[in-house]
Amino acid sequence: MSRISALDLPMADPLPDQTRKYFDICQEKLGLVPNVLQAYAFDIDKLNAFTAMYNDMMLGDSGLSKLEREMIAVVVSSINKCFYCLTAHGAAVRQLSGDPELGELMVMNYRAADLDPRQRAMLDFAAKVTKESSVIEEADRQALRDVGFGDRDIFDIANVAAFYNMTNRMASAIDMRPNPEYHAQFR
Amino acid sequence: MSRISALDLPMADPLPDQTRKYFDICQEKLGLVPNVLQAYAFDIDKLNAFTAMYNDMMLGDSGLSKLEREMIAVVVSSINKCFYCLTAHGAAVRQLSGDPELGELMVMNYRAADLDPRQRAMLDFAAKVTKESSVIEEADRQALRDVGFGDRDIFDIANVAAFYNMTNRMASAIDMRPNPEYHAQFR
Amino acid sequence: MSRISALDLPMADPLPDQTRKYFDICQEKLGLVPNVLQAYAFDIDKLNAFTAMYNDMMLGDSGLSKLEREMIAVVVSSINKCFYCLTAHGAAVRQLSGDPELGELMVMNYRAADLDPRQRAMLDFAAKVTKESSVIEEADRQALRDVGFGDRDIFDIANVAAFYNMTNRMASAIDMRPNPEYHAQFR
Amino acid sequence: MSRISALDLPMADPLPDQTRKYFDICQEKLGLVPNVLQAYAFDIDKLNAFTAMYNDMMLGDSGLSKLEREMIAVVVSSINKCFYCLTAHGAAVRQLSGDPELGELMVMNYRAADLDPRQRAMLDFAAKVTKESSVIEEADRQALRDVGFGDRDIFDIANVAAFYNMTNRMASAIDMRPNPEYHAQFR
Amino acid sequence: MSRISALDLPMADPLPDQTRKYFDICQEKLGLVPNVLQAYAFDIDKLNAFTAMYNDMMLGDSGLSKLEREMIAVVVSSINKCFYCLTAHGAAVRQLSGDPELGELMVMNYRAADLDPRQRAMLDFAAKVTKESSVIEEADRQALRDVGFGDRDIFDIANVAAFYNMTNRMASAIDMRPNPEYHAQFR
Amino acid sequence: MSRISALDLPMADPLPDQTRKYFDICQEKLGLVPNVLQAYAFDIDKLNAFTAMYNDMMLGDSGLSKLEREMIAVVVSSINKCFYCLTAHGAAVRQLSGDPELGELMVMNYRAADLDPRQRAMLDFAAKVTKESSVIEEADRQALRDVGFGDRDIFDIANVAAFYNMTNRMASAIDMRPNPEYHAQFR
Repeated sequence: MSRISALDLPMADPLPDQTRKYFDICQEKLGLVPNVLQAYAFDIDKLNAFTAMYNDMMLGDSGLSKLEREMIAVVVSSINKCFYCLTAHGAAVRQLSGDPELGELMVMNYRAADLDPRQRAMLDFAAKVTKESSVIEEADRQALRDVGFGDRDIFDIANVAAFYNMTNRMASAIDMRPNPEYHAQFR
Repeated sequence: MSRISALDLPMADPLPDQTRKYFDICQEKLGLVPNVLQAYAFDIDKLNAFTAMYNDMMLGDSGLSKLEREMIAVVVSSINKCFYCLTAHGAAVRQLSGDPELGELMVMNYRAADLDPRQRAMLDFAAKVTKESSVIEEADRQALRDVGFGDRDIFDIANVAAFYNMTNRMASAIDMRPNPEYHAQFR
Repeated sequence: MSRISALDLPMADPLPDQTRKYFDICQEKLGLVPNVLQAYAFDIDKLNAFTAMYNDMMLGDSGLSKLEREMIAVVVSSINKCFYCLTAHGAAVRQLSGDPELGELMVMNYRAADLDPRQRAMLDFAAKVTKESSVIEEADRQALRDVGFGDRDIFDIANVAAFYNMTNRMASAIDMRPNPEYHAQFR
Repeated sequence: MSRISALDLPMADPLPDQTRKYFDICQEKLGLVPNVLQAYAFDIDKLNAFTAMYNDMMLGDSGLSKLEREMIAVVVSSINKCFYCLTAHGAAVRQLSGDPELGELMVMNYRAADLDPRQRAMLDFAAKVTKESSVIEEADRQALRDVGFGDRDIFDIANVAAFYNMTNRMASAIDMRPNPEYHAQFR
Repeated sequence: MSRISALDLPMADPLPDQTRKYFDICQEKLGLVPNVLQAYAFDIDKLNAFTAMYNDMMLGDSGLSKLEREMIAVVVSSINKCFYCLTAHGAAVRQLSGDPELGELMVMNYRAADLDPRQRAMLDFAAKVTKESSVIEEADRQALRDVGFGDRDIFDIANVAAFYNMTNRMASAIDMRPNPEYHAQFR
Repeated sequence: MSRISALDLPMADPLPDQTRKYFDICQEKLGLVPNVLQAYAFDIDKLNAFTAMYNDMMLGDSGLSKLEREMIAVVVSSINKCFYCLTAHGAAVRQLSGDPELGELMVMNYRAADLDPRQRAMLDFAAKVTKESSVIEEADRQALRDVGFGDRDIFDIANVAAFYNMTNRMASAIDMRPNPEYHAQFR
């Protein structure tokens, strides 16, 4: 097995039953166990905290579609140049949209994409959260309201953008490697 | 009660018993319920995911002292100019260190502090994680090993730094306001 | 006595009578002789030139209140991350305003403060003078006129902002240390 | 007479005798009264404070030659893209060095100049003071000592660099215009 | 036919015989006529100047392999976030290397790739040419010589990196669209 | 003869007749053979490709005057701090405009120049192409149309700006030295 990250932090052995089942489900549904989960599995509390936050945010109820949440993930990761997250979530955008070019546009430069004003405003806000959050003001939130987002949606856009600013940094800091299967998926 | 953030997202009402108890403990121990918890309490799943990650990271076992984790929190928040996190965690540095000037140094410019090489390397890494994670390489991790950190410590430094890059952005994006009690504490 | 800066430049000895008297007045009124004055006192001509400019600018007649001039000082110093000036002038904002939170807001992120349009425009101009003076144009000056500032006020805003861009750099370049008494003042 | 700056702040009228004499000397020696002096002459106290600091710094005793002080002025002004200061002090470098190409190099990119290690270190320090003073540390000062500068010289390099960070911002903020005579001088 | 760019500049009609033949060869060999050629074809002199420079640089003799020249093209385009060039030259890296992951690494973050020191130095130089050419000095060129490059190779690395800094800007400035066929190629 | 660049790449010897004639014409008309041509003359194909592109772009038909194309060249080179191009094209602006101050303004800070809206918009676009081409959108091109430029003009502005982003980087990367005669010309 190729290495997961630059750190020598082997997975808990044996894995707790619940974790083992979760990984089996990943393998069955995705064809792989995402390396990020394996990287956290040296400490099951940290793994559980991460997956709880991730699953609520990316898969739970929201005014944002799952594709939109993945688009935010990729745009943030493009600004932060995170190889792991661009690879994994780029594949997710291709899968959920059925549009490989859209995945490439999110990776390369979302401004070159032909988006509707709602999604464009969403990504502009996510980019500002990433690059200069300290200058965000009411006018930035109002720009989201102006294209139809409610306050809960604004929370979710901010939350997803903020989350990938965490994972991008974590992945780059420890050189987390994406599962190689992602590259060819949904092309 | 003054507002918590720029979003109109009232807390769940009634709060679940467990949440209510948790808030009561905060009030008793800290003299306040941190506004960040109230800001997430419109959705108890999100609140629980946040507190689980926070408590494991900042209060759980680690080769980093609680003070060191708070120092990282403030240095990251200084780079991101997050009023909420600088206020709350600046107070924590003053409290845990018993050294108000150290708290100010972390807020203003950690490079002006007279730190030992271990803590200086720790904060330099956290700053690089914050400002340019995409250029982190093995040499950066080796610099941490050279002052005595192990791979688990490196994970924790990266993890704490990455986490505050999330919370800083979330707090700024929704204009989360710190509890005013923090300002005068531990001066 | 703790060191004043990283340079070995002792004060003139004996100090001229006028300088001695000036330092005595500082001690009496402020409870300390600001280290910046001691750092310049190796050369009385330089000290006198500095104090003449400082006293005229910060204490002389102006359409800006003394508090407003100190607010500019802190906002500029926050951008330049100058430990000396943030410490000394942060205390001055707390003293002159009687509002410790305002002092923290100027240190941490003035955009998070709830300011009237006049003061906000004043600080936005000071921030632009600090970060990208080469792109200032008539529209930037007009924005000051639009909230009621006259040309003499614009001169003063620019002058104070420019001055702290000098002192911030001087203090950081020679590692000037603030008097420790400032930290606890006016909290 | 063409305008001096974007502000409507006419010179004191009549000028005090001492100021009038000073301007006459400028006219006689330089062939012009520098516009910066005219821009400050609406308030004689401000003018006197400025000229006292300027004359001590640029013309007084120092381990730096007058040419070296002017080289620092131009390098700082190049980073800040200040039209006034580049014009006036570029002419001064050409005059004092008798080398028009040296003036152009300081304006355009000092790194392309063939300088001795002492002057190169001096300008590198001045550039760092200008661009990122908050990260200056002992190693930066030591680099100056390593090429022969003493602590007083370090003070002067920092002081001159810091001063032009003030004047550049002041000139750009109020659109101060250089006397047109400078352009053709010493070519 | 979908649009080529944001400008309304139709191709010369009829195309000169030589141009027509060149486009036919492109169609036959590549399965498409690159849109960049169609974007310049409103003016045959400009098209010929562009193709002459391109063909000499990317296909002519050089100490750099064709793959290495394409790697430089993609790394430069990643820094400049040029959708056109990342798409077209990302496909070329996948084709020439037979390694789709290498193409993704060049697009996303070349520092995450496991390169030999020669290619790493080559790409570091290309990145510096792109981001801060004004601070390149002899030490940067020497770093290339230290891993075995000669002066002609240094010329070629600089030349290819500089060229894509031109084409990236041209493509973004006029919103040149890549041929959609590139996305699925060589995955 | 002084050196042309940091690379040891002597001119082809003998030069082909056509090249020799071209250099003779340069000598006769300009009083010098631009060093950039000598730097490329180690490989006549590269020299010819460069001169073909240069002559078409800078001397061929265009809605932009030759002076305007040179103004773009200098503004781009000022941002990139390229000593070679600022020297050579600064002289060209002085020559073509008969206005030495205009040349200095383009070198130092074009925003300080008193330009008509058409030329100002042209230079703002060229600056954006240079500094952040990835965020150019239709609104930027529309701003050019609003002051009277057509689509062919937009192509030319982008093309000239992009070209000097290439030559600036090439000149800085190999330390190309400008012919010293330029400095005193047209002052």
